[in-house]
Amino acid sequence: MTLGQLLPSLRPSLSTQLSADVWPVTARRGEDGDLLVGGVGLTALAASHGTPSYVVDSADVRLRCREYVTAFGPGNVAYTAKALLSCGVARWVAEEGLSLYAGSAGELRVARAAGFSGEQIVLYGSAKTPEDLTAAYTGGVAAIVAESLGEITRLAATAPRGQRVLLRVIAGPGPGVGLDSRFGLRIDTGEAETAVARIAAQSGLTLVGLDCSVGHQENRFGVYEEELRRIVDFLAAMRDRHGTELTRLNLGGGHAVAYAGGDLGFALAAFANRMRGVLRLRAEQHRIPVPRLTVSPGRALVSRAGVTLYRVLSTAHGPDGRRLVAVDGGMTDCPPAALCGGHHSVALVGRTSRAQLQPTTVVGRHNEVDDVVSPSVDLPADVHPGDLLAVAGTGAYHHCRASNYHLVGRPALLSVQDGQLATLVRRESIADLLARDLDLPPDADAVPATAVPATAGRGMARA
Amino acid sequence: MTLGQLLPSLRPSLSTQLSADVWPVTARRGEDGDLLVGGVGLTALAASHGTPSYVVDSADVRLRCREYVTAFGPGNVAYTAKALLSCGVARWVAEEGLSLYAGSAGELRVARAAGFSGEQIVLYGSAKTPEDLTAAYTGGVAAIVAESLGEITRLAATAPRGQRVLLRVIAGPGPGVGLDSRFGLRIDTGEAETAVARIAAQSGLTLVGLDCSVGHQENRFGVYEEELRRIVDFLAAMRDRHGTELTRLNLGGGHAVAYAGGDLGFALAAFANRMRGVLRLRAEQHRIPVPRLTVSPGRALVSRAGVTLYRVLSTAHGPDGRRLVAVDGGMTDCPPAALCGGHHSVALVGRTSRAQLQPTTVVGRHNEVDDVVSPSVDLPADVHPGDLLAVAGTGAYHHCRASNYHLVGRPALLSVQDGQLATLVRRESIADLLARDLDLPPDADAVPATAVPATAGRGMARA
Repeated sequence: MTLGQLLPSLRPSLSTQLSADVWPVTARRGEDGDLLVGGVGLTALAASHGTPSYVVDSADVRLRCREYVTAFGPGNVAYTAKALLSCGVARWVAEEGLSLYAGSAGELRVARAAGFSGEQIVLYGSAKTPEDLTAAYTGGVAAIVAESLGEITRLAATAPRGQRVLLRVIAGPGPGVGLDSRFGLRIDTGEAETAVARIAAQSGLTLVGLDCSVGHQENRFGVYEEELRRIVDFLAAMRDRHGTELTRLNLGGGHAVAYAGGDLGFALAAFANRMRGVLRLRAEQHRIPVPRLTVSPGRALVSRAGVTLYRVLSTAHGPDGRRLVAVDGGMTDCPPAALCGGHHSVALVGRTSRAQLQPTTVVGRHNEVDDVVSPSVDLPADVHPGDLLAVAGTGAYHHCRASNYHLVGRPALLSVQDGQLATLVRRESIADLLARDLDLPPDADAVPATAVPATAGRGMARA
Repeated sequence: MTLGQLLPSLRPSLSTQLSADVWPVTARRGEDGDLLVGGVGLTALAASHGTPSYVVDSADVRLRCREYVTAFGPGNVAYTAKALLSCGVARWVAEEGLSLYAGSAGELRVARAAGFSGEQIVLYGSAKTPEDLTAAYTGGVAAIVAESLGEITRLAATAPRGQRVLLRVIAGPGPGVGLDSRFGLRIDTGEAETAVARIAAQSGLTLVGLDCSVGHQENRFGVYEEELRRIVDFLAAMRDRHGTELTRLNLGGGHAVAYAGGDLGFALAAFANRMRGVLRLRAEQHRIPVPRLTVSPGRALVSRAGVTLYRVLSTAHGPDGRRLVAVDGGMTDCPPAALCGGHHSVALVGRTSRAQLQPTTVVGRHNEVDDVVSPSVDLPADVHPGDLLAVAGTGAYHHCRASNYHLVGRPALLSVQDGQLATLVRRESIADLLARDLDLPPDADAVPATAVPATAGRGMARA
């Protein structure tokens, strides 16, 4: 039972509170119900840059990076860039001293452009294309994660001499069943050992360590501990049977992030201490050197830094009487597969309301059953077309997985910091959408653009 | 029990058969295991234009259009363009005499560029943006579908005088429950009647008919019949109580499409006859004029015309022993939300195999549990890296919902016809992906491009 449930008259005012676990670290309420992130008022931002817009609090990204580096030590944290990547975001991460896990030639290219050296990049992926490998070879990456026996043969045949390799293993059985644990080489079947022997037999490849992943949105320390113990057992067996000394162990990411007020967080410092303890103890039991423990979080570094700002287009009632609020985005910019459990927190922005809170489903503009931004949030009963809504926890897996369904352009990605606003990725215009359509008559671009200029100012603007 | 199950030795040869309900109408096997669509060999297409590629059989699209026009009559069929839209595809549909349902300013723009007049376009959408409405007003569309009471007020305030309006109604209760039936005005609650009266009271708006939808992938005629009867009852009530004569009734789309050999098809001619009969009978019972019956299919016109061509990157075995085949695309170009039930048919292309068939899961390159192209298909046991796979039934909701996850460019959309190949939408290059990233240093584009040129020839090429 929450305080708001005990004292209904308090509910409207409580609705203006922002949970620190869910909203960006700099988020705070301003005058007249405005919401400020990075010192920038979102009402003014919507007016100048349009909606929907992704707003990223660079201070929040940097804070999470520092927490990870403090917990695991300098050099031991990589950002898995698929969660959110632009050149600007990558630059923040590089400046905080992290390295980067890239899953494609495109991600590698952005990482290099942002200032990561090849030595700071690892290429991973269960099914790499020839272009991905060529980019990794050319870029001189720190390591390539080998994820199948066939790939070892392929790397041996194509990689530069001395290519460093991490082996992705499945320590299982663990919680991942079915397709969930399909990425990597199984320890229990002997496949991982075969892989170790095969890499050792290739004079052109150097095996430097192991890599694994326990899943997504996982906050049970025991799951990670179990994985770690099994992998140390495997390291010891490889030392005994093949004389292989592997000095690096990447425990992946998957650390849970809170999306709504009641969600469990992830106690990072305690986690790091616990994992180091488990690792040291197990290694000592086997009398092997303690390997270097690294992690490669994605979502945990960027999810809470991101807020999506929408404008309300219409309101209605669903067949069950529930209030529906439709915004000017939806499944294109807030993909159903973003693995957030679907319960983003939502706040009214730009005015104060004394209306009672009402259970609300925030839906998108795409006329589909699964076009839902947040299935159940409490919002003031007087929310109406023209209002602004801010949706929390959209930093990860939103910008990167957005689509152009209904030929709708993707939002701008805007950074905010110390009262300054900058465009990281500009809004996608109709002209952008049609640029690859080769049947379009040349004069089609002359049709007037939409109301909000797609090329809205790049420069820094006082909020 | 299939013939292949009765006589296992026949299975490899049967695997080369292509179900006519699932593959494009022109698809046939060529020499050496090649697959030809529109007379173009896919092996040569992969070599010249790369993979993954979307291949669209224009003859199949045109055939489906003609079947619909034959069944419902000229002027009574609109294409709901969200399913697949490029300027070239829209031109085929226009040439076949269909009109078009557009869901955004972007779709409207492509439709106009492809040759549709405003009079041939209807704008619909549960939450239209100001830009969508401006585009519709400027383009002089045939009608705008009003989908909420608030929207009627908005149209009255902003639309050109005389704007024709269709009213989207929910005849329910029907099969759609929960959020499924949230789009439109309910008849049973009196909301739809309020809307009719409200539009009638606006001298600037002209109500021309009703619009509805029964769902997706629906092949039970009874569901459509029930909807139709309820709507005719409503028409009669509006005539009696408001003197409103509505002469047009759009029954939407939703007609089921087969994705795998065993799927039920949709008997279109029988459906059209049945619906016309139900409509006439019910209208006569009420002694009202028989309204003009129109339909607006999307998927049914384009789904089977499309094939996606992938190259195999790796093979592995899942934890349950099932064989996994990973291709050079996946969830980015074959979205999990494409509502196809997930069971696309898959064929090996470019060589014959005498190997036994083996249950196989075709997965993508994106390291995600839901990155599955087809969960269970029989493919020869010797499928290996470098092989080509063609995936059927990807014409609808694939190109339009593709994403750039992992910074991977979207496939080209290629049309094939009479042995000729043309690029409708060119492949997305890494440079395209980075065009909106404003932090990228100017020289970053100088990095060598990927192996397959993104700007691969536009022109017609003999296959």
